[in-house]
Amino acid sequence: MTYAASMTESGDVDLLGALAYAELTAFLRMAEDASQLAPNLTDRAELGSLAVAEYGHFVLLRDRIAELGADPESAMAPFAEAFDAWHEQTKPGDWLQALVKAYVGLGIALDFYREAARHLEPSIAPLVEEVLADQGRSEFVVDRVRAALADDPTQAGRLALWARRLVGEGLSQAQQVAAARPQLARLLADADQADISRLFAQLTEEHGKRMAALGI
Amino acid sequence: MTYAASMTESGDVDLLGALAYAELTAFLRMAEDASQLAPNLTDRAELGSLAVAEYGHFVLLRDRIAELGADPESAMAPFAEAFDAWHEQTKPGDWLQALVKAYVGLGIALDFYREAARHLEPSIAPLVEEVLADQGRSEFVVDRVRAALADDPTQAGRLALWARRLVGEGLSQAQQVAAARPQLARLLADADQADISRLFAQLTEEHGKRMAALGI
Repeated sequence: MTYAASMTESGDVDLLGALAYAELTAFLRMAEDASQLAPNLTDRAELGSLAVAEYGHFVLLRDRIAELGADPESAMAPFAEAFDAWHEQTKPGDWLQALVKAYVGLGIALDFYREAARHLEPSIAPLVEEVLADQGRSEFVVDRVRAALADDPTQAGRLALWARRLVGEGLSQAQQVAAARPQLARLLADADQADISRLFAQLTEEHGKRMAALGI
Repeated sequence: MTYAASMTESGDVDLLGALAYAELTAFLRMAEDASQLAPNLTDRAELGSLAVAEYGHFVLLRDRIAELGADPESAMAPFAEAFDAWHEQTKPGDWLQALVKAYVGLGIALDFYREAARHLEPSIAPLVEEVLADQGRSEFVVDRVRAALADDPTQAGRLALWARRLVGEGLSQAQQVAAARPQLARLLADADQADISRLFAQLTEEHGKRMAALGI
């Protein structure tokens, strides 16, 4: 195996490992938020169903990592600290914050899947399709947040601030991961710092569009 | 509709509502325990997969309640307090307690499903089959607990005490539910207090067999 091939493979496993840990953690944290913050059993079940969909993605990613001959736990481990830190710094204080967090988190994850599909295809293509097909599941969040804002428009400022904090903390963790995992950064952004900045700028722009959809 | 028919139907919806809330809550609490207590990512994913299976059962029950023309949220609501109280009183302090709780909780739920199948059939039969088919999923718990006890046999006493507390708190909540929902108690135990005691005695006996399987 050439050095270049081994590098690419390691970047692939890194990317799949990061996404796998992100999905596993999103599943567990969303379930926690649903349990602790949902105002009624229907909403609890709705956020629960989003969480379950995340677990499904985790399983696909874990199996793909194993197919590549890597150990899923080892592939995920380097990213645990960054994702755990993000979740610790962004514990929702109420149901609306939990909804916005779920929506923002899923949105950014989808952006990463799209990037991954550009760089890893065809190995990850069916997985990305399945994840994108699940996108509709988060639409209940848009309904709930818009309804809450219609009832009380003063919530918009608070939630907009919250969403910026979610992204800000996320980019800060991502910068650290990119520095620690150069193969991964190279895979996603063709190596130089300017490209990484461009990738982040694009994620931020997509995020802005999603916030407009929520009305915040 | 005769009085008797309306009573039976209300008992059916009660039973499905209680099981649905139990599954929804088990899903969320197991996910929480997996997130907070699992010693590694593999175990976290394993308990996560048990949690996801619970969510699948919840969906089946919720849909069945809706098919009967009842509102799932209203059907579940009368049982929320008892199940929430049980979970509050039995928060696992470590991973082994979380495993034993998952195993004990699933076991008791299966006993209730079997009772339900005897009394509600044929409406609930396919659902019970699906739940029983999932029984194998909890076998990883047996492996983990037995391995932990092989490493450190002194854990057995502590875990046996924990399992008794889980059942004791459960029976105490169940007594209160049975008193508050006479149709449900009547459905499961043909009405009189002696029968309810017999049902509880049987659940306790099944529980004893499961504890023997765990080695505690």
